[in-house]
Amino acid sequence: MDINLIEAADRRLEGHVRRTPLLSSPFLDEIAGRRVLVKPECLQHTGSFKFRGGWAAITALDPEQRARGVLATSSGNHAQGIAKAAAAHGVRAVIVMPSDAPEIKIANTRALGAEVVLYDRATEDRDLLAADRIEADGLSFIPPFDHPQVIAGQGSVGLEIAAQAQEEGVTEGDVLVCCGGGGLTSGIALALEARAPGLRPRTVEPEGFDDFARSLDEGRICRNPATSGSICDAILTPEPGRLTFPVVSRLAGPGLVVSEDECLRAMALAFARLRIVLEPGGAAALAAALFRPEEIAGEAVIAVATGGNVDPAVFRQALDRHG
Amino acid sequence: MDINLIEAADRRLEGHVRRTPLLSSPFLDEIAGRRVLVKPECLQHTGSFKFRGGWAAITALDPEQRARGVLATSSGNHAQGIAKAAAAHGVRAVIVMPSDAPEIKIANTRALGAEVVLYDRATEDRDLLAADRIEADGLSFIPPFDHPQVIAGQGSVGLEIAAQAQEEGVTEGDVLVCCGGGGLTSGIALALEARAPGLRPRTVEPEGFDDFARSLDEGRICRNPATSGSICDAILTPEPGRLTFPVVSRLAGPGLVVSEDECLRAMALAFARLRIVLEPGGAAALAAALFRPEEIAGEAVIAVATGGNVDPAVFRQALDRHG
Repeated sequence: MDINLIEAADRRLEGHVRRTPLLSSPFLDEIAGRRVLVKPECLQHTGSFKFRGGWAAITALDPEQRARGVLATSSGNHAQGIAKAAAAHGVRAVIVMPSDAPEIKIANTRALGAEVVLYDRATEDRDLLAADRIEADGLSFIPPFDHPQVIAGQGSVGLEIAAQAQEEGVTEGDVLVCCGGGGLTSGIALALEARAPGLRPRTVEPEGFDDFARSLDEGRICRNPATSGSICDAILTPEPGRLTFPVVSRLAGPGLVVSEDECLRAMALAFARLRIVLEPGGAAALAAALFRPEEIAGEAVIAVATGGNVDPAVFRQALDRHG
Repeated sequence: MDINLIEAADRRLEGHVRRTPLLSSPFLDEIAGRRVLVKPECLQHTGSFKFRGGWAAITALDPEQRARGVLATSSGNHAQGIAKAAAAHGVRAVIVMPSDAPEIKIANTRALGAEVVLYDRATEDRDLLAADRIEADGLSFIPPFDHPQVIAGQGSVGLEIAAQAQEEGVTEGDVLVCCGGGGLTSGIALALEARAPGLRPRTVEPEGFDDFARSLDEGRICRNPATSGSICDAILTPEPGRLTFPVVSRLAGPGLVVSEDECLRAMALAFARLRIVLEPGGAAALAAALFRPEEIAGEAVIAVATGGNVDPAVFRQALDRHG
């Protein structure tokens, strides 16, 4: 994994990806006690940064692989990113999703043209199910984070942040990233290392699912005790990836942890101050920027708002509590 | 009023305005039966396009005028645009607002540093109140739409649409604009006339407040029977402006009218499909794009989503009914 792979993915994304702006509000700056710049990947195609990695992975396949199709496992955002990128290239996409994934994510993945295979988290083995389909149909597996091209695609966010931060006069400080398996964080970390070495990536996770924070602290991969049971469904993973952890471990600062309620509060503030829609897992970095000022370095902080695919009932909850 | 004034305003906005992207979703295209491109000015500074006109007007003042300050009348979005532009230039801003304006708009205008003067729509004369303050303090009056520099600033939206539509391969079709007094519509109309003559501006108004639609139909300025009583507060005006109407009349197609419920439905769809927050008046153009397909020409339609300053209770209503 290096910057060349990210730059190559970025060139393949040109003209297809949305280059999201940096948003800000004096009201958020006041809460945080420093400038807050938000990279709204909720405005990306399919509502999350995952479109980038999906596009990068699909476009890296050779013609034979494209003809046979791809399989992905995902609770929803990777699913939609792969589905849209595959459809754009006429590639068959089979997505294995847990049956308790947010309804909107399952419905959207199907509507984008993918074949969705649901499984029960409690009674079925996802990896076995996926392996069977892959073998039977000769599909190429595109995992949600531990894959060089997926990391490279997500890294395009880091290239944009490096350029946009410089335009804003920000050359030092923390870049907060909502973190599941670490695909986005590792891609951003590699991009910043090459293009904006004064910007330091930081993982942000929900309480109880802070595998990266603990792993970074202990210097080895640690697992979460549970893999479901949080409204931050987009960033729940059992443990850091084998490819992503070494990169994040080498380049990132200590991991940050926020509560579910802080994510809901950040959603309500993003609604009122930035007029963007975030899902709980996509609001974790903004929550840390606003509510963990003492754990953050620099006069400005950049928060990646990773996704906005949220069921209306959950969004209403954020407005009810904090609107 | 001509393109030169708009181009000059656009140059003064450079580096200060947010150049908003064009957003889209295959799900919206399906509803509309054609491509739908959305210009999300809810992402603009202060949450609406009004920042553009405010900045253009403030930067057009001479040093003596700036030293004395400005006065604006507004139900909220123009207020915030003026407040922020004035604060950036160290200019005193007095804003006369109705006491029943949305709370968030009053609070934000104050927080942005403006002096807010509230008046009672039923018992007080706004224009008399404003005239007294203007005379007493030597303030420059910046009205919400009928002002050459305000129209020029709003016209920068049209310059961006002309360039972005061409990038998207769209050279013919309708550009739908949520319309109050016609400042934005007339500015966009002049920009499109010069830069993208195949794109035709169209006003969109809420039922019961369709002064532009009726005026365009009759070829003379017609008044609305009421000036309050709609959730589309941002685009309620008594009648088309004296400067704006001749421009819109010369360049725009017939006016479109949507219901309040259609605005709420468009808000819910913008939430789910574009992950942006719209206020009812800011969603009128998208509502027309989605729900009035038979009244629209072209293979693609561009809808300007003019603002996103909405009280949480109203947004919840959109999600409750249509989420």
